[in-house]
Amino acid sequence: MTSTPALPNFDDVKQAQARIAPLVHVTPIHSSAQLSALAGCELFFKCENLQKTGAFKARGACNAIFSLARQQLRNGVITHSSGNHAMALSYAAAQCRTKATVIMPSDSLKSKKDSVKSYGGELIECTPTLDARESTMQAIQAKTKATFVHPYNDPLVIAGQATCAAEFHEQVPELDILVTPVGGGGITSGSCISTMALSPDTRIIAAEPKAADDAYQSFQAGKLIELPSPTTVADGLKTNLGSLTWPCIRDNVSDIVTVEEQEIVNATRLIWQRLKMVVEPSSAVVLAAVLKYPEAFKNQRVGLILTGGNVDIDQLPW
Amino acid sequence: MTSTPALPNFDDVKQAQARIAPLVHVTPIHSSAQLSALAGCELFFKCENLQKTGAFKARGACNAIFSLARQQLRNGVITHSSGNHAMALSYAAAQCRTKATVIMPSDSLKSKKDSVKSYGGELIECTPTLDARESTMQAIQAKTKATFVHPYNDPLVIAGQATCAAEFHEQVPELDILVTPVGGGGITSGSCISTMALSPDTRIIAAEPKAADDAYQSFQAGKLIELPSPTTVADGLKTNLGSLTWPCIRDNVSDIVTVEEQEIVNATRLIWQRLKMVVEPSSAVVLAAVLKYPEAFKNQRVGLILTGGNVDIDQLPW
Repeated sequence: MTSTPALPNFDDVKQAQARIAPLVHVTPIHSSAQLSALAGCELFFKCENLQKTGAFKARGACNAIFSLARQQLRNGVITHSSGNHAMALSYAAAQCRTKATVIMPSDSLKSKKDSVKSYGGELIECTPTLDARESTMQAIQAKTKATFVHPYNDPLVIAGQATCAAEFHEQVPELDILVTPVGGGGITSGSCISTMALSPDTRIIAAEPKAADDAYQSFQAGKLIELPSPTTVADGLKTNLGSLTWPCIRDNVSDIVTVEEQEIVNATRLIWQRLKMVVEPSSAVVLAAVLKYPEAFKNQRVGLILTGGNVDIDQLPW
Repeated sequence: MTSTPALPNFDDVKQAQARIAPLVHVTPIHSSAQLSALAGCELFFKCENLQKTGAFKARGACNAIFSLARQQLRNGVITHSSGNHAMALSYAAAQCRTKATVIMPSDSLKSKKDSVKSYGGELIECTPTLDARESTMQAIQAKTKATFVHPYNDPLVIAGQATCAAEFHEQVPELDILVTPVGGGGITSGSCISTMALSPDTRIIAAEPKAADDAYQSFQAGKLIELPSPTTVADGLKTNLGSLTWPCIRDNVSDIVTVEEQEIVNATRLIWQRLKMVVEPSSAVVLAAVLKYPEAFKNQRVGLILTGGNVDIDQLPW
C-alpha cells in the first residue's frame, strides 16, 4: 500500500489542459429554447458525448497516461471500468503507443466492449461486481507490472476530468449552478476544483441515480458509505466514491440530489428529441435532476455536463 | 395561373441571410476521425439537425414569411409537406404572429405532426399522394385566401435554403465536393446558387434514395420526370423536383447518385453511433452516397448537408 496521494489543485488542472490539448476536443455547448422553457431556467449543455471516445473520460485517461515515465509505459497500463474509462484508456494508450488492458464487467454494453477492442485495448471480462473487477485486475497486474490507472480515484485522472468544467466556465461565464453527474466522483471533484478557481460563485449540485445513491447517502451521513453492486440504467454511474473524491465532494458541492430510473429514461428521450444528441442515460441524470426540482433552478443560468454518448442503439431503454 | 417566377440570385441569398439571422441558428460543422477514415476522405457535416425546428427548412420558411406584405399576413399562410417544411412554416408563422395551416400526408411521422401543433400550426391530414396534398390545400385556400408557401418551388424558399451552403462555405473554405440531399430540390438548387458565388471550384453532387429517384432519372434523361407516390425510409426526400429547382439542378450539379434503402439505414446508424447526432434517414443519404462511391470522393474535402433530426425515436428504422 502506498499513502493516499493528494487531490490535485488548479495548477495541476492547467498542466493537464496543456498536456491533453492535442489529444481531446474542446467540446461545444448546446442549448434548446424548448428545453429551457420546460425547465424554467436557462440550460447550457456541455457536450462530452462529442468528446474523443464519446465521453469525458478521455480527458482523465490522456492526462494520466501522458504523465507516465518511459519505464512505466513499457509495461503498459491496466484498469477496470464499466465502459467509458476503458475506452478512454484504450484510446489514450494507443495515442501514446503503449498497451492497455481493461477489465470490464460482463454486463457492459456490447458497443463499449467492441469500442475498447477497436481502439486496440485488450479486453478481459469479469463478473459484474467491484470485488471481481479489482481481484481480476490485481492477478493480471502481478504478472505484467502494468500501471493501474484508476477510473476516478487518481489525482491525474481527476485533474484531467477537471479540464471539462474549466472549459465550461470559459465558454459560459457566470453560471449560477453547475450540475454534474456523480458516479465515482471524478468529474464532480474535478468540477469543484476548477469552479473554485474560475467561478467561485457558481454552486455545484451533483445528480445521482437513486438506484446507486452512495454519494447521496454519504453526503447525508457525513461519512463515506459504499454500496456493493448497484444497478441502474445510468450504467456509467454505478461506481462508489473513492478516498480522494469523497472529501472533495463533501466539502465543495452545495447539494446531491437523486432521480428515479424512469426519470432518467424520460430525460434521455428529451435530450435525443430536443437537443438531437445521442447521449447515454448517465448523461441525462443531470437534466432529470433539474426537471425534478424546478424550484432549485428557477430562472438560474444552469450548466449541465453530459457524460457521454456511448449507447447501444439496438438496446434503447424505452 | 401566374407566370413562373425567376430563380433567386446570390443577392437574394444575402438578403435572406440578413432577414432570417435573428430567427435561425448558424449551425455547427461536426466531424469524426473514424467516419473520415471509413470514407477515405475528409468529411465535414453541416448539422441542420441542430437548426430551429430540427431541419434546414426553417431557413426557407422564415425567409418566405418575413417577406410577405402586411395584408398577406392577415390571411395567414398555408402549405403541404411531409413534415419538416410544415414544422418550419408553423415556427416561422408563430415568430411573425400569423397563422399557418399545414396539409400533411396521413403517414407522416407522429413526432412531426405533434411538432406542427406544438408550434401553433393548424394540422390537416390527407391521403399520402401529391395530388391529394394539392387538392386539399386548394380547397382550404379558396376559403381563407391564405398565401401558399411551397415547400421548395418558391424563389424565397430557395433563397432561404441557399443560406445553408453560404454559411457552410464560410465555415469550411475550399471544399472539393458538396454533397446535398435531393428531394424537391430546394436545398440542392440553393446550394448551387451559393456555391457558384462563394466557392465556384466546389463540385456539387446530389444524393437521392433509389426508391424516389425522380431527380436521378430527370438528370439522366435531360428532362423533368415525375414519380407518382414514391416510398422511402428517407421520408423527407419523396417529393419531385419543381419547375424552378429542376433547371438549376440540371445545369449546375456535377452528378446525381442514388442509394438503396438499406444503405440509408446503415448510414443513419453510423451517424448516430459515430457523430452522436440524432438525424433522420433523409440526412444520411449523403453519407450513404459517399460510402457507396468511395472512388469519387477519395482524399477529397467533402461537405455533407444533414437535412434534419426529426425522427420518431420509438419507431427507428432498424
